[in-house]
Order: sequence, then C-alpha cells, then structure tokens
Amino acid sequence: MRYSELFTKTSKTSPADETARNAQLLIQAGFIHKEMAGVYAYLPLGMRVLENIKQIVREEMNALGSHELIMTSLQRKELWETTNRWDDEVVDVWFKTELKNGTPVGLAWSHEEQITNMMKNYISSYRDLPANVYQFQTKLRNELRSKSGIMRGREFVMKDLYSYSRSDAEHQAFYDAVTAAYLRVFDRVGLGDITYVTSATGGAFTKYSHEFQTISDAGEDTIYVNKDKKIAINEEVYNDEALAELGIEKTGLEKVKAAEVGNIFSFGTEKCEQLGLYFTDDDGVDKPVVLGSYGIGITRLMGVIAEHFSDDKGLVWPEAVAPAKVYLARLGDNEAVVSQADELYELFNNRGVSVLYDDRDVRPGQKFADADLMGIPYRVVISDKTVAANIYEFKARQSDQASQLNLDDLLKTLDITT
Amino acid sequence: MRYSELFTKTSKTSPADETARNAQLLIQAGFIHKEMAGVYAYLPLGMRVLENIKQIVREEMNALGSHELIMTSLQRKELWETTNRWDDEVVDVWFKTELKNGTPVGLAWSHEEQITNMMKNYISSYRDLPANVYQFQTKLRNELRSKSGIMRGREFVMKDLYSYSRSDAEHQAFYDAVTAAYLRVFDRVGLGDITYVTSATGGAFTKYSHEFQTISDAGEDTIYVNKDKKIAINEEVYNDEALAELGIEKTGLEKVKAAEVGNIFSFGTEKCEQLGLYFTDDDGVDKPVVLGSYGIGITRLMGVIAEHFSDDKGLVWPEAVAPAKVYLARLGDNEAVVSQADELYELFNNRGVSVLYDDRDVRPGQKFADADLMGIPYRVVISDKTVAANIYEFKARQSDQASQLNLDDLLKTLDITT
Repeated sequence: MRYSELFTKTSKTSPADETARNAQLLIQAGFIHKEMAGVYAYLPLGMRVLENIKQIVREEMNALGSHELIMTSLQRKELWETTNRWDDEVVDVWFKTELKNGTPVGLAWSHEEQITNMMKNYISSYRDLPANVYQFQTKLRNELRSKSGIMRGREFVMKDLYSYSRSDAEHQAFYDAVTAAYLRVFDRVGLGDITYVTSATGGAFTKYSHEFQTISDAGEDTIYVNKDKKIAINEEVYNDEALAELGIEKTGLEKVKAAEVGNIFSFGTEKCEQLGLYFTDDDGVDKPVVLGSYGIGITRLMGVIAEHFSDDKGLVWPEAVAPAKVYLARLGDNEAVVSQADELYELFNNRGVSVLYDDRDVRPGQKFADADLMGIPYRVVISDKTVAANIYEFKARQSDQASQLNLDDLLKTLDITT
Repeated sequence: MRYSELFTKTSKTSPADETARNAQLLIQAGFIHKEMAGVYAYLPLGMRVLENIKQIVREEMNALGSHELIMTSLQRKELWETTNRWDDEVVDVWFKTELKNGTPVGLAWSHEEQITNMMKNYISSYRDLPANVYQFQTKLRNELRSKSGIMRGREFVMKDLYSYSRSDAEHQAFYDAVTAAYLRVFDRVGLGDITYVTSATGGAFTKYSHEFQTISDAGEDTIYVNKDKKIAINEEVYNDEALAELGIEKTGLEKVKAAEVGNIFSFGTEKCEQLGLYFTDDDGVDKPVVLGSYGIGITRLMGVIAEHFSDDKGLVWPEAVAPAKVYLARLGDNEAVVSQADELYELFNNRGVSVLYDDRDVRPGQKFADADLMGIPYRVVISDKTVAANIYEFKARQSDQASQLNLDDLLKTLDITT
C-alpha cells in the first residue's frame, strides 16, 4: 500500500473527547473513527489489524473442526421470551426496535437462543452430535457507559462459538479443546504471557465459569493471579470457600487489573430444554443436548493489544497482527532514491510481504514519527546517503538502534526468502 | 470439507413458508436459515458462496485503487437531520432505537452521510483528492413487505463504495471506471450476458442514474432492453422524451422483468455542501467535493444467481462462486473404496481444490440428489466398480452424461496441475 493513496492521516494531537489510551492512539494514527461513545468505524489500517486477529482466531476455530456461519442481528421477541431473556429487567443491554407492522424485534447482543433454536432443524439423533459452529458477528449492546475506547463498545465484533454435545463428558472434552485453542490465540497475538484462565461466576449448571483475563491497567476487572502457577480467580468469586473448592492457594496470589478477552461457559442442558432441542440417543431415549458457549471479543482484543503494545511514540504492533510488516520510508525525491524505493516496494509485494510505502512529499521527521505512531514492526529507510553507500537503513519499532544492511542481509533480517 | 462433519442437512421438501425460489432452494440445500421474513442467516455452505462473491467484488474494487473499511450500524440523528434524511416521512425504511439516556439512534440503511461527514477529518486540500473507499456492510431496512427471499432483505449485505472528487471531470472518469469494474464483477459471477447498464431515475444532480439490471422473472423491476446493443432503460423513466435524450431507439426494445443488482449515482456537490465537506483548490478557493455512490447488493446478487442458475434438481452454481468445486461421492464403505476416496480428497486438498467429500453412510441415490440440489459444479464418484476398473466416474452438474476417466484425465478435466 502506498501512503499517498491512503485517505487517512495521522494527527499530532490526541483526540480531546477520548480518555481511553487505545482509542486515543488508534484515532491519532488514523486506524479508527469515533462515531459516538462506544461506536467506532474501522478505517483501512485498523481493519487490517482486525482482519489479522480474526484470521488467527478463524484458523484456531477451524482446527477444532468448527464451521463458520453468520447469524442475524434482528431477533424475534418470542424466541428470547422462551428463555426469559427478552425482558429489559433481566437483560439490560438490549437495543430494541420494531417492524413496520409494529412487531417488536431486538438487535442481537448474543446468539445462544437463535443458534440453538435453529439447530432443531439439524439435530435429532445422537448421530448428529457433536456439532459446533462459530461466527464473527457485530453485536449491539446498550451499555449505560462506554468510556474504554474499543475495549467496551456499544457496537463491537465478537467471535462466538457454540457447541452441542451428547453428554457431559463429550462436552467437557470439547470445552478443554477450546480452552487450549484460546490460549493459542492469545499466544499468537502476543498476549500469551499476561493472559490467564480465570475462575469466575458460573451459572445454573456450573458453580464457576472460565474467563480469559489479560493483565491491563485499562481493564475493568480485578483478578487475583499466581503468575508462576499460571492460575487466576476473579475478584467477584474470591473468598476462602472458592479458593478451597478450586484448589487455589492464597499464598502467591497478586491482585491486578485485567481485561476479559474471552470466556467459555457451560449451559448444561438448561437452554436446550427451554428451547426444545432434544436428540434421540442410541438407547432410543430422547435427551436434551448439552450446550457450551465460547466468546472472544475481537475488537476488545485489538484494544487490549493496542494498550499493551504501545509507548510514548505510539503503537507497537506484534508482527502477527500489524497492518503491515514493513514501513518503507523514501526520503526526498531524487531519481535514484525513488527508483530504488519503488524496486524494493515491488520486491516486497512480489514476496507477499505487507508493506506501507511512504512515498509522500513530506519531511523525514514526519515519516519517522508516523512510522512510530502507527507501530509498524520494521522500518526501512532509503535516502541519498543509503543509495550512495549501497545499503538500506533498518530499524525495528521497539529498538532505538538503526543498522545499515545490504539487500541480502535486509531480506534475511526480515525473514524473506530470496 | 467432509460432509459427515457438516451440521446442515438437505431437505426433500421445499419450505412451506417461502414463495421465492431462491430462498426455497437455498433453505432446502442447507445454505441459509430463515429467521423471519427478509432476515436470513448464512450457514457454512451459503457463507462460502457469499464470501466468494465478496472476494470477486473486493478484487475489482481494490483494482480501482479503493480501500476497504467498515463503518458502523448505529447512526446519529443529528447527522441525518443535516441532510433531511432522518424523518420517516422522507426515508421510510429506518429502523430506529435509543440509547439508555433516551438519545434516538438509527440503524444504518445507507452510509453516504456517515462516510462523507468522517471525510471532513481527512480531506481539506486538492492534494487529498481523489479519494474513495468501500465496505461490505450489513444494512438494515424496514421494508413493509419482504417476499423475495434473499433478493430483498430487511437485513442484508451490501458493498457500497463512495468516491470524492475535485471536479465533475475527475468524478466522471472514476464513475466510468466503476461502471467497467461492475460489468467485470457481473461477468465473473456468470451473469454478464443478462446484465445491463440501465438508465433510471436520477436526482438533484443528474437527470438519470445508472442501474445494473439482471434479467430475471423473480426481479421486481421492469426494464426495456435492446439485447443486441446492450442498452436498457427502466420503465420508471421510459417515455419518448427520455428515449430521445438518452439516444435510445424504440425499435428493438424488449420489455422484461429484471432485478437491480447494482447502482451507481452522482450526488454532485449537494451532499458535501450540506455536510460541509469542502477543500481548498490550487487556486486558493474553497470548493465543495463531488460525491459518487456505488452499490452492489451482495446477498441479492447471490439470490439472483441462485434463481438463474438452477433447474428442477436444484442449484447449479457457476464455478467462480460455488461453495466447492468438486462433490466427491464415496459409495459404500469397502476398504479399497474408502482408501481411494480418502486419497483423492487429500490430493484435492493439497492442490487447493475445494471439495465437499460425501463420506456419509447413506444410499447412493441420496448422495447424487444432494450433489445436484447443492449445485456443486463437478461430481466425482468412487465405488467398487470404479476401483475395480481403476477409473473415476466424472459428471458436470449441468450434464446428463457421466464419463469414466483415469486419474490423469480426471485432473486434466478439472484443470488441476499434477
């Protein structure tokens, strides 16, 4: 991508109406646009980050044998009444509207009801189980307050997966597989070492559920974590009884702020009983299906990554999610510089290396500042000086030290096969 | 994809509550799920078709130098009041709801206002022009009636592109480029020969706009088309005066039903003036930006393709959008059959050929019926007989004739390089 063709611009100042660091940086860098509190558009570079995160999650969900689908935003009142989740007294985040004929409809804040109800078309026998599906869906939640940037949106992207199992044992095996897949996701986006499977409030079926909490001062949760043992418990259930039941020792626990980037939840057979999703087992008996629900807040995760991987100069994306791998800055417009920069841009494109090519007619200082603010992992500079010396100036975003490399070494350093 | 791992099932009967052929077939084949009239979920195979269509459109939009972003569904009342499009008397398809504090918000049925308003952050000089952006967005439109399956949804996917130009001439050049790109899209999805650039009602700026109309009995529009000259005019503007102005001869025009699969629209400078999007030209004068808006109804397009490419046995997807290229049917479960089918499945996967592998324990007749109903372009059958003869049975979906091929010829026929 040529910077000159990109319509977004960076800003020297932080947006006045944002208190959340993630949104401040992302708006300043031209990655997102704020429409109203908790409602953000994703501009080309921000969308690339979002799509990179989604692709990592997609690969891990596909590896579980799950299939992607996309449900609807509009929801039927009767369906949610069946499980007593339509009433605003019970669920306080509904956005509701109505059809022309006056029929009330809701905007989806979750999809357990809709998917489970649909599954009645497809699950009738033990032979149809296990089944599991996932989606990336824009959820709408009417949050009272929304001041955490993209970490708590009124409109946000979530990956939600639903599993349908024949028995508790079958459910548990899949639940464990999802836990492992989630840990791989958080590893791959660079948050593995600060993300903890955390015991939290359960439901009708299980006393505790599991959250994935990433240590972050911007987080809204408080957890007690044992970093050595890699275990954690949410403050909401932190007491001596719970510690004993969960087999967690009080010693070594540290109280920290954290952001919930994922959660996994066992519904047991309750919701399928409410909605009438039964199957005939091999003994001829009709039994309710066991439901599991597994979420990752995709846009929230992007916000947590932005919070964690940033410094006083701006964003510092991990390579796996960065909008481009290389920021190629061309200084000046002398013919030799332009032609060498164009050539390297071509070479990167041909090798499938994503590159943001700063071909603008602006001062070097602005190019360097933009490269830092945008947080592209590697910066390559081509100038009169480098052309004369037949080298390239290379710098990693998180390093203060630039190095002078010939083409071979540059490509080697960037892991590009020649 | 192994059929045994897919949760959807085909149905022998057409859904009772559907009158639209596209939805009947797509539901019967397990591609979509109807939540309510005009509101459909896309199941794994349906989603593959949708993604294939989106990818074709994406490639053509990227080739125009356009960048993808994603705006929001929630819309601010004040913004739409600025252009007098908030009022239900003016725009009768709004879904509206409100924030917790009582602030009214709308659910986006279009995005001209939001994107144009945002562009004020990024466009201030002639140097920032031209700019253009696009998105694939789920639109909500509160249609009074919705009986055309996925061809007219209350919730549907649209690709919308917006162009910002310095002058009418710059605008016109891009407008023409989009026209050409749209024709390539409709060619690539297989509808090129029955899709016409059609003159239709214009707006404040131009007397006529352009629609892309695909001849279809399921369409809601009526157009007059000259098939030889590849020109068409919408019934809504069909009269002697318009024909004269557009230079269309009455002779040779044929009246047909058609579905609007795309439209392109010049707003002139009107909307940018309303919203305050001005730029400083190189003569130092502030001028309003010229806006163009270009839509393709992605889910509608999928519906039109389903209507057009189908027969009494089911769907007949063009290869470019098919959920898989090959339907691999294994008959019986003798070891030699299973191992040869597994091997071919592996080979297809390794070669990047998308394949739906029917590894289920069901009668051959059902496998053949499903292959036809789902409309996968090519069917390969492996049975005791084919294994014994060391051949593969091959049949194209639209052919009645199966042929017996050895592996080399099979791969050659399928355009797979060995």
